[in-house]
Amino acid sequence: MRAIVAHAAKDIRIEERPEESPGPGEVKIRLATGGICGSDLHYYNHGGFGAVRLKEPMILGHEVSGVVEALGEGVTTLSRGQLVAVSPSRPCRTCRYCQQGLHNQCLNMRFYGSAMPFPHIQGAFRESLVADVLQCVPADGLTPGEAAMAEPLAVTLHATRRAGELLGKRVLITGCGPIGLLSILSARRAGAAEIVATDLSNFTLGMAKEAGADRVINTAEEPEALQPYTADKGSFDILYECSGAQAALASGIAALRPRGVIIQLGLGGDMSLPMMAITSKELELRGSFRFHEEFATGVELMRKGLIDVKPLITHTLPLSDAVKAFETAADRSKAMKAQIAFS
Amino acid sequence: MRAIVAHAAKDIRIEERPEESPGPGEVKIRLATGGICGSDLHYYNHGGFGAVRLKEPMILGHEVSGVVEALGEGVTTLSRGQLVAVSPSRPCRTCRYCQQGLHNQCLNMRFYGSAMPFPHIQGAFRESLVADVLQCVPADGLTPGEAAMAEPLAVTLHATRRAGELLGKRVLITGCGPIGLLSILSARRAGAAEIVATDLSNFTLGMAKEAGADRVINTAEEPEALQPYTADKGSFDILYECSGAQAALASGIAALRPRGVIIQLGLGGDMSLPMMAITSKELELRGSFRFHEEFATGVELMRKGLIDVKPLITHTLPLSDAVKAFETAADRSKAMKAQIAFS
Amino acid sequence: MRAIVAHAAKDIRIEERPEESPGPGEVKIRLATGGICGSDLHYYNHGGFGAVRLKEPMILGHEVSGVVEALGEGVTTLSRGQLVAVSPSRPCRTCRYCQQGLHNQCLNMRFYGSAMPFPHIQGAFRESLVADVLQCVPADGLTPGEAAMAEPLAVTLHATRRAGELLGKRVLITGCGPIGLLSILSARRAGAAEIVATDLSNFTLGMAKEAGADRVINTAEEPEALQPYTADKGSFDILYECSGAQAALASGIAALRPRGVIIQLGLGGDMSLPMMAITSKELELRGSFRFHEEFATGVELMRKGLIDVKPLITHTLPLSDAVKAFETAADRSKAMKAQIAFS
Amino acid sequence: MRAIVAHAAKDIRIEERPEESPGPGEVKIRLATGGICGSDLHYYNHGGFGAVRLKEPMILGHEVSGVVEALGEGVTTLSRGQLVAVSPSRPCRTCRYCQQGLHNQCLNMRFYGSAMPFPHIQGAFRESLVADVLQCVPADGLTPGEAAMAEPLAVTLHATRRAGELLGKRVLITGCGPIGLLSILSARRAGAAEIVATDLSNFTLGMAKEAGADRVINTAEEPEALQPYTADKGSFDILYECSGAQAALASGIAALRPRGVIIQLGLGGDMSLPMMAITSKELELRGSFRFHEEFATGVELMRKGLIDVKPLITHTLPLSDAVKAFETAADRSKAMKAQIAFS
Repeated sequence: MRAIVAHAAKDIRIEERPEESPGPGEVKIRLATGGICGSDLHYYNHGGFGAVRLKEPMILGHEVSGVVEALGEGVTTLSRGQLVAVSPSRPCRTCRYCQQGLHNQCLNMRFYGSAMPFPHIQGAFRESLVADVLQCVPADGLTPGEAAMAEPLAVTLHATRRAGELLGKRVLITGCGPIGLLSILSARRAGAAEIVATDLSNFTLGMAKEAGADRVINTAEEPEALQPYTADKGSFDILYECSGAQAALASGIAALRPRGVIIQLGLGGDMSLPMMAITSKELELRGSFRFHEEFATGVELMRKGLIDVKPLITHTLPLSDAVKAFETAADRSKAMKAQIAFS
Repeated sequence: MRAIVAHAAKDIRIEERPEESPGPGEVKIRLATGGICGSDLHYYNHGGFGAVRLKEPMILGHEVSGVVEALGEGVTTLSRGQLVAVSPSRPCRTCRYCQQGLHNQCLNMRFYGSAMPFPHIQGAFRESLVADVLQCVPADGLTPGEAAMAEPLAVTLHATRRAGELLGKRVLITGCGPIGLLSILSARRAGAAEIVATDLSNFTLGMAKEAGADRVINTAEEPEALQPYTADKGSFDILYECSGAQAALASGIAALRPRGVIIQLGLGGDMSLPMMAITSKELELRGSFRFHEEFATGVELMRKGLIDVKPLITHTLPLSDAVKAFETAADRSKAMKAQIAFS
Repeated sequence: MRAIVAHAAKDIRIEERPEESPGPGEVKIRLATGGICGSDLHYYNHGGFGAVRLKEPMILGHEVSGVVEALGEGVTTLSRGQLVAVSPSRPCRTCRYCQQGLHNQCLNMRFYGSAMPFPHIQGAFRESLVADVLQCVPADGLTPGEAAMAEPLAVTLHATRRAGELLGKRVLITGCGPIGLLSILSARRAGAAEIVATDLSNFTLGMAKEAGADRVINTAEEPEALQPYTADKGSFDILYECSGAQAALASGIAALRPRGVIIQLGLGGDMSLPMMAITSKELELRGSFRFHEEFATGVELMRKGLIDVKPLITHTLPLSDAVKAFETAADRSKAMKAQIAFS
Repeated sequence: MRAIVAHAAKDIRIEERPEESPGPGEVKIRLATGGICGSDLHYYNHGGFGAVRLKEPMILGHEVSGVVEALGEGVTTLSRGQLVAVSPSRPCRTCRYCQQGLHNQCLNMRFYGSAMPFPHIQGAFRESLVADVLQCVPADGLTPGEAAMAEPLAVTLHATRRAGELLGKRVLITGCGPIGLLSILSARRAGAAEIVATDLSNFTLGMAKEAGADRVINTAEEPEALQPYTADKGSFDILYECSGAQAALASGIAALRPRGVIIQLGLGGDMSLPMMAITSKELELRGSFRFHEEFATGVELMRKGLIDVKPLITHTLPLSDAVKAFETAADRSKAMKAQIAFS
């Protein structure tokens, strides 16, 4: 079978790998679709991010769906031919944090396509994949592309739960890439009354509008547009910071009301924060990292028609065009989510 | 102007009352629509409930909308001819609880149509009403009937916020009267993944299904239907108890998972609770009473199309048919929300 | 070795049992002290409580400390001769609730001295005990009697954490048995500003005063003493219901302020609740059941001198006087915590 | 009467001001003691901090106690001769935030000795003070010096409540000035099991140890001492950042466990934060600003002997030595809290 392997910055190759057989409690999956995520792009463009660097060849990919092809011993909850969304998250379930229910903080996490430990954790962009049955969520009724969106959707559902109760709240979302757009869908699903989204690209802002933002602002064209929201100490209850840009964070903080909450989703480097505003308005900055039970929640919400991610999938390319898919995914002037069709 | 006045059980009369003029910060409203609530029905049918009894004639009604007719001194945020939803909640804003933001617990509350203090607080079923501008929420784009639903909707939005974060949660709703149905709409709006509703009437259960319940159960016809939900200590995260029936509460508690939350909405008498289950599953029973800021939230959510209450309004009768309207409202085999058209 | 075995109501016997050897990850403990709990008394006096009944002989006891006598394979964190408090809680760590960090809700719990499943879970009132190393918390510096108090202390620490943040809060405690008194110590440790305790026995109230209650009330002698606390909708933020008496719960609810919290600790039968007060004051009734990480927390707080349980231990009898110890423990006119010295 | 007036950096003068008479609901107070706070020192040393600058002469001081000398009309809850702690916080009680119970976020706050609005809010370092009865908390049984500590104590009690439930938690406190030490007292009172404090001064660390810290670390002498706490993603549940030093914040963040909480107390300038750690460990940074009901809580806890601030008061100087008092207060090698005796 073929897999997409990153060797170094700008050096990804389609290589042959042996197929594996499912052990007890596992299933063998014929991959259907794989979505390209920002971290995949970092490996592709820069060979890593921050202290996380490629040190050996690594199969990329962690947003995947596929069809169950063979069942390992003892597997009774899935059946052959069934479409499943496959969670890339594989916590140990026994360490201190797993035992506290914080599986996304597992001390022994083996998350697909991560160069953080060495040897690296190989990813899921491969035609055939053996996964634990606990990773697989039946996706009957969804397209393979939708099912592959379960992973980034789980990220924003987790972030939304980190934000607390949202019913009737006012939400600002800075940065309208896939995570920003899924944040719009998640915040709306959780009951946000008003959603304002900012970005520098009119293409992504147009998609944000379609995704349900009440107002979109191109902060390059309208740098003062958030100003009215700063009156009387601020207007927004929640800020999803999805841009990684310090200017966006600073202007968002000025527009947050006292006791407002900033959800920090990006994995950026150090950032300078206006501590005077954070202290005096008693803001809360909360990190949000990956997900756990929200993976299954996202699949359920999509299957029930309560969240629709299809408009976000702007490009689907065959495995043979993998490099082009990565180049497309990196272009925010025309692509939102680019996916690779494996079969 | 005419008003609907309760004198005793089964004795409501349409009487003449003098019109009032708006003082500073007040507006005069030509009433459009008034919805009949369960407490109105208790006054009509029984002359009160529990220790709350009619001791003098009282104008009924607290679910109302109308059109602004005249502005008192200093009013600039409303204009004549504008449709407004009028909140019946008039807290003092200075007592201990108001100062803590718990306005629904105000020690000096003057809630329309309440026989609790004496002299009673006169209600809003009257052709002309003078209200504080703080009570009035612009309802442009809504029908008068929808605007009059802002009050019961606020009750269930408040209850939903009391339930905490609902995204992806499983919800059981016992009792499918107007409050049960608005609970379905509110829980769904807040992100509930699964909603099961129970009642004894197939009419209300049919409406619950239309309102978005994933499954409805007639517990008279299927007394064992909740049984499977009790496996492994229970399935539901949240129970909205809207029936006031002890059997419903007990079966709901058995179906709640450990740490599940019961939102108690009804104002019933004493009730016997299975304390062993509450303690050992560490359940939480939370009272929910009226609302405060959720009144404006409800109007906003309706105006944005995020909650649609129109299907719940099954009957609209003219003021001259007030008695018939009350009789209709009391019949759960064919009426959900009955409203009175005042103009 | 000898063990205390319950055969039926009023029929407990000291019997010989074979000693066990520690397996990997286990230790063998020479029991030092065992405290008699209310549930032990129920087995002794009534052969069970509610639906929980003795169906075969069962070793009683779950409040124990002892000295490590032998180490099983791989045990490196304990040493021979060390005093340990032994937690009776043995969750499976793999079921749904364990994986959520709710180990006290484990679907496969094997809690010492419980007749709930069949075969029963044998208890710890035995001269020699083999336990998992995870159950053992080093208790250096404590007396064996104090170490044996770790278990009931963990119950009230868990209850206190269920109550939320207590700093500066006003607390009412109804029922001044061992759990009531440990609630006083726990609430004070968590920062309660005012603690009022009620009971019917002047002996226990005297001990409550010594334990730090600001005021104690004998509700038999002063039935109206809580009346002033009901003014303006109530005074207390938190009620620990430790009496199991409906009258205590009802009078406590009347004295709770709006949004007050009732922590239900007792495992009683059905109880009638004033739902009108619960709904209209938006009270929260929260069950609290056993503990998990609070067992180690309690030992740490005792070792640091931050909680002192010694005054609660009123009686210590030798194993040969086990029946007398049970009779003493049941007498609230002179005993608080009665313990059995096993060595 | 005399008052301490700041004119510019290093220019404070003792000046005559006319005495005032108490109006309805007010009392006239003969000042007893005034504590010098960090913000007073900023005005004294630098003429302000950040964007807050002296633009006209301003009476300093906001940590004060005094004796009631005269009662305005309608005052019945205080009596002449009574020692009171006087809160410097004067919210409007009607703005949006006051109505939400967030009085410390009042849009019209008039906090003693603040150069933030113009004209400035004059402070309380004056021999005679007229205050609203709502500002005055009876301090019978306390020394005037203790009563004057109610204000900074309220700051750390508020911060502690912002941190959530602390029972059994592990706490790191960076910076051992008066706020750091009061944080130790407050965290311990709220049930912290382990408190580690860091600073660069052995004098303040010695006082931290006396105040109850389990361990103190001079990070200048032992720069690696926090390293062991960073194992397995970190050890502390809560960090009180009281130093305003970026290095302290960064090392504290590394020692926080996943989901740990940083309470930011200082009003510093922009600060660079390690966002990768905040996101991936899902930390929460919460600003804490002043206080509201915690002022009365602090007085109550001191009166009951539950918090003892006396050891923190290292210097008391007469009004005539005001300049020397300010110089002393600024010297962290020998002074903790310096106070001025006004009578």
